[in-house]
Amino acid sequence: MNVLWIFAHPEPRSLSGALRDEGLRALRELGHDTRQSDLYAMRWNPVVDGGDFRHDGGRRLIVGATSQRAYSEGTLSDDIRTEQEKLVWADALIVQYPLWWFGMPAILKGWFDRVFVKGFAYGVKGPDGRTLRYGDGGLAGKRAMAVLTVGAPEAGMGPRGAHGDIGDLLFPLQHGIFWYSGMSAVPPHVIYGADRLSDDAYEDHAAALRKRLASLPTEEPIPFRRETGGDYDESLVLRPDILPGRSGLAVHCA
Amino acid sequence: MNVLWIFAHPEPRSLSGALRDEGLRALRELGHDTRQSDLYAMRWNPVVDGGDFRHDGGRRLIVGATSQRAYSEGTLSDDIRTEQEKLVWADALIVQYPLWWFGMPAILKGWFDRVFVKGFAYGVKGPDGRTLRYGDGGLAGKRAMAVLTVGAPEAGMGPRGAHGDIGDLLFPLQHGIFWYSGMSAVPPHVIYGADRLSDDAYEDHAAALRKRLASLPTEEPIPFRRETGGDYDESLVLRPDILPGRSGLAVHCA
Repeated sequence: MNVLWIFAHPEPRSLSGALRDEGLRALRELGHDTRQSDLYAMRWNPVVDGGDFRHDGGRRLIVGATSQRAYSEGTLSDDIRTEQEKLVWADALIVQYPLWWFGMPAILKGWFDRVFVKGFAYGVKGPDGRTLRYGDGGLAGKRAMAVLTVGAPEAGMGPRGAHGDIGDLLFPLQHGIFWYSGMSAVPPHVIYGADRLSDDAYEDHAAALRKRLASLPTEEPIPFRRETGGDYDESLVLRPDILPGRSGLAVHCA
Repeated sequence: MNVLWIFAHPEPRSLSGALRDEGLRALRELGHDTRQSDLYAMRWNPVVDGGDFRHDGGRRLIVGATSQRAYSEGTLSDDIRTEQEKLVWADALIVQYPLWWFGMPAILKGWFDRVFVKGFAYGVKGPDGRTLRYGDGGLAGKRAMAVLTVGAPEAGMGPRGAHGDIGDLLFPLQHGIFWYSGMSAVPPHVIYGADRLSDDAYEDHAAALRKRLASLPTEEPIPFRRETGGDYDESLVLRPDILPGRSGLAVHCA
């Protein structure tokens, strides 16, 4: 497979940096081709603005429509087009980051904000004119896996943990970005207690990551529901006969 | 009250920009003092790196510990200290943004990443040595409200909507940032279908926002559970006798 590794940590001499090196080496040993976007090393600009679209500042900027036009005309800024070319090349995407304030570091959020433009990753229409999303869309057929380091211990991020269940915290990324744009989300690989790891623990974490990467091509993805699978009504609400009376983000897994 | 308005939209001539102007005017007419951080206009840098802390690049950067030292020594970069001074001044915080990929635009996420450093907004210890958070902490006593524009219609963001319930999507911000650092989260003000609004609808939306702002000092906050309120065990897991057998982010509301 072609695997694109997105890395968003400011310090290469960190646990995250060591695991990134380990992961890329393991993928190559498994026979995959790899590319990387090391966002800090690239000095990636995460801020969407008119410059992305060669937009004339004299007119009002409407991000969705303007990005779609720039994408279709090939006039997106060069840094965005380079990342889109890597995505087109990739069969699988690894997105590695430290969990900051229960989400992605800004440099990574802004990679999605700027690269996943309308017409490329969303707002793509099928032959019948319907918008393709949630299991279908511009990046359909690819797999994606989040690899996270988290300062907190695991218990606080379990189903009843005060920090929120990790699956729910990752819903915006795994369902709202990966699945929305068509990519299958492989279960995340999470390293808890990352602020307090002993040196001895490193080899175990490296081995665990290698094992996950070995099953990347075959692992069963999170069973998010397809928009067109019949489970949602025309307003995108789960039909009443499916898990009747239940709510919470977990209802979107079949 | 002293109200700090954080604004994160690239286009002042947008619905968001008009509502921001409207909101600030309404607050002043209500007798409040206002300040603003218009992140795009300020060309806010959202990327955490060693420069924030005058960190010597020769040594490994450990973000939490390094930020805490720079905060306590008063050596954080000037732009961060200016924002912290505004926060200290504020009794209430309005955080206004367009929902992009089910989260904050990078420029806003990076305002929290850079300004909410250890020792200021998290990692603050009480007299007994316990870390203060979830209802207590560096910003305790303040209120915060998210004001969002969302492209999608409302149904898809309801309790069983395919995009995820809006309360769950906002959990990382409202519970993981506001409440974690001690701020009470007032229910969010969400404008749905923002991509398809008629001009007629604007006055209704302006009136609805003014109404929400009028009740900002008195409105009942979201009843998130206090960490020290007895509902969680030592591992931060909800005690078994509270909502037994239930999970999902909503269990963290009393």
